[in-house]
Amino acid sequence: MNILKVAALQSEVFMDKQKTLEHINRLFEDKAVCDADLVTLPEFFNCPLKPDLFQGMAEPEQCETWQLCSRLAKENGVYLSAGSIPVLDDDGRIFNTAYVFDRSGNQIAKYAKIHMFDINVPDGQYFMESDTITPGNNVVTFDTEYGKMGLCICYDMRFPEIHRLMALDNVIVTIVPAAFNMTTGPAHWEILFRCRAHENGLFYIGTSPARDEGGPYVSWANTIITGPWGDIIAKADDKATILLANLDLDHQKKIRQAMPILTHRRNDVYTLERG
Amino acid sequence: MNILKVAALQSEVFMDKQKTLEHINRLFEDKAVCDADLVTLPEFFNCPLKPDLFQGMAEPEQCETWQLCSRLAKENGVYLSAGSIPVLDDDGRIFNTAYVFDRSGNQIAKYAKIHMFDINVPDGQYFMESDTITPGNNVVTFDTEYGKMGLCICYDMRFPEIHRLMALDNVIVTIVPAAFNMTTGPAHWEILFRCRAHENGLFYIGTSPARDEGGPYVSWANTIITGPWGDIIAKADDKATILLANLDLDHQKKIRQAMPILTHRRNDVYTLERG
Repeated sequence: MNILKVAALQSEVFMDKQKTLEHINRLFEDKAVCDADLVTLPEFFNCPLKPDLFQGMAEPEQCETWQLCSRLAKENGVYLSAGSIPVLDDDGRIFNTAYVFDRSGNQIAKYAKIHMFDINVPDGQYFMESDTITPGNNVVTFDTEYGKMGLCICYDMRFPEIHRLMALDNVIVTIVPAAFNMTTGPAHWEILFRCRAHENGLFYIGTSPARDEGGPYVSWANTIITGPWGDIIAKADDKATILLANLDLDHQKKIRQAMPILTHRRNDVYTLERG
Repeated sequence: MNILKVAALQSEVFMDKQKTLEHINRLFEDKAVCDADLVTLPEFFNCPLKPDLFQGMAEPEQCETWQLCSRLAKENGVYLSAGSIPVLDDDGRIFNTAYVFDRSGNQIAKYAKIHMFDINVPDGQYFMESDTITPGNNVVTFDTEYGKMGLCICYDMRFPEIHRLMALDNVIVTIVPAAFNMTTGPAHWEILFRCRAHENGLFYIGTSPARDEGGPYVSWANTIITGPWGDIIAKADDKATILLANLDLDHQKKIRQAMPILTHRRNDVYTLERG
């Protein structure tokens, strides 16, 4: 059996960044985390999702949070999806940026969220991500010893185009730092993760911050791991927790053979390409 | 309020085609069906989904079943999605073909299924649609007094590309004659209809034959109508039934404004086009 051991950290996000980073550091004292092949962190795991905090808490490239994640990957010999964090460029722009480190602590992927969450649900949620965040411009996949993996962030889940492009790039696992809220979470979280995994025949890991009812942003939490048959492999509730799962990569190949959706695509009827 | 009254007929499919057509005819004696704006029928509503029956039961264009549906649409003054039926062309090829008739009984849309359901699930289902069915080559939308509608069939639900193309063509309702089975139904039926409706911000009507445990094909049934928020508006169980729903087309516009997924697409990062 060809197994990928995953530990998804549904961590807490504090107003005090030092407290958050100490919390992340401590989670790696858990044997199940050190023993995983791939550890994943949530969207904006070092900064509450409150726009007026972003400018003050964003870091330039390779600063404090990046250094910690590189070190944790290396010390524990794990692949680490360092969720996403607000990253400041030289022009003062902030990107919602996801990094991945290999077992030696080297950065092997960087993705800046490309779809901005600008929504206004009557009696629901108002959020204009593009007021404070600058979108990225690239779909990102990366190589590991297990095969290719993909990377996207939260609202990107609603755009099947980039998921198909990653799948066509032979991705076997797509990692999704995310933080759905109390309006969109109950409505869309589970169906999106099950549907994307099924229609592309691969694993999805959706890692969310724990819910903090009294905090500046109330996350739906429910960190989830779905499989190529559209099934839920593991799911957390709303509390801070470590969600563990063993992904059977041979099973993924079998499902793709049983229902080869990707080879059934009609390239003569429609074309989907990177722009 | 701008309302579309839908009656989805989860009808029975008999080995004797005359018996099936009489059954369909009788369903229109129900006041709720006559009073609907749009009536929908299942995939292969006049022929069991058993490949060795197709050649014997398929009809050329505009024959018996087509004539009945055109007449029922006209007599009742309804739009009628005549599910799909096996249609024979001059070369003896069979297409899985969906027709739509307007309130005057005129054919206003014809769609031949483009994705062939060729699957082999270990300890599950084996089905090679392409052994007996020839695929079509076009994505189809059509105009009504309510706005544009889209059309696809069953396995097409797993290909987000055509659904996005229909949505970008300003479709407000996509009609899906379908007949998921007892393996794929429980796993995928509901999440696909909820996810497609949500990610494209429109209504989906999935109409299935009733379940016949002793018949040549056992359908999952569960005819379903989903809305632009990814919600289930109405759902049947496994028995023959008429599923009614009032689709609030103003609500659809509001959801699209609240979460404008289609306008958030990144045409500079990816392109999706008809081939």
